Amino acid sequence: MKLYGYYLSSAAFRVRIALNLKGLAHEDAPVHLLRGGGEQFVPEFAALNPQNLVPVLLDAGRPLTQSLAIIEYLDETHPQPPLLPTAPEARARVRGLALAVACDIHPLNNLRVLRYLKRDLEIGDDERDGWYRHWIALGLAAIEQLLDGDEATGTFCHGEAPTLADICLVPQIFNAKRYDCDLEPYPTVMRVFDACMTLDAFAAARPESQPDAPD
Amino acid sequence: MKLYGYYLSSAAFRVRIALNLKGLAHEDAPVHLLRGGGEQFVPEFAALNPQNLVPVLLDAGRPLTQSLAIIEYLDETHPQPPLLPTAPEARARVRGLALAVACDIHPLNNLRVLRYLKRDLEIGDDERDGWYRHWIALGLAAIEQLLDGDEATGTFCHGEAPTLADICLVPQIFNAKRYDCDLEPYPTVMRVFDACMTLDAFAAARPESQPDAPD
Repeated sequence: MKLYGYYLSSAAFRVRIALNLKGLAHEDAPVHLLRGGGEQFVPEFAALNPQNLVPVLLDAGRPLTQSLAIIEYLDETHPQPPLLPTAPEARARVRGLALAVACDIHPLNNLRVLRYLKRDLEIGDDERDGWYRHWIALGLAAIEQLLDGDEATGTFCHGEAPTLADICLVPQIFNAKRYDCDLEPYPTVMRVFDACMTLDAFAAARPESQPDAPD
Repeated sequence: MKLYGYYLSSAAFRVRIALNLKGLAHEDAPVHLLRGGGEQFVPEFAALNPQNLVPVLLDAGRPLTQSLAIIEYLDETHPQPPLLPTAPEARARVRGLALAVACDIHPLNNLRVLRYLKRDLEIGDDERDGWYRHWIALGLAAIEQLLDGDEATGTFCHGEAPTLADICLVPQIFNAKRYDCDLEPYPTVMRVFDACMTLDAFAAARPESQPDAPD
């Protein structure tokens, strides 16, 4: 398998964690999102993904896009260890937590959006950072409530093994730390984050450990 | 089943379509997102969903949040007719198309974001509408490319029956029309949209047909 990603992309980070949890080797194909106007816009990459977004996974067939679709694919083609629980209601809980990050925090804070705020709406850096922190704080406050006091929450977001929910949560916390967000209001979130980071699958997927990360 | 929604919410619209395709009756529990500061913020609703977002589906157990998680739950608990194809690669394609709407267009244009642009960043109405149309145009252009010329595309986004991809695409086109977006550049998208709208399951789910829509 070949993974087109970028060390700082939290969507690519998700896929790296999933591959690691499954014990699947992959070749890295770094796409530098900032260099030369952005390598995601070169025709070779746009042919793989007209959305000009990472990650893209090449397995046997067509290029696979969208981190959550890729991870569900990996879970279906390599079922062990499972990244979703078995019961439909539990699966809905895990997917709901994952989507609370993937739909309601991350899309508001990715590179193209921050660029639009700065270039097209001429928002200053302080206001842009305030925007970034606003959506993280709103999202994490809700996730804290969804985790805290729900008996389905265990060492991880759902029970005693990492799931798709943890895979989405951890890269979001890395982003939050990069923007100096106050994480003290989210003790359950941070307890889960710390538990995840003791696992090699998560630790090895971190941005600074990727081949395209600066020295 | 009880669906907390709002007639103009495209995430609730998705769940309405899925329920209709499955032939599942449901009770509507309208949550007026604009009235009195927003009914999504009243404690009774926040207890169902600390994200203060619709839709929420009440079935047997815990409240289910996030439209895509809800729809996957419905597909797992009521498999006929299926909303995803069988092969993992095909499922990844359908989920990828759905997420291209649900992660990369819709979250940028929902009510709370438009409010933040106006109230906190003091963006004018024209710039706000430009923002709205920008993310729709960018997203639909990519989806047009993903659909056009891919032999997996049929009458619908994937083959000859509606899937999760169509369920996400149709409400997004309703939003695009509401903001007078130019849809001519997306002939394949619009052909699929028109095919969907011939089906009762889609037509009955449209905003203006909901009990909470204004006369």
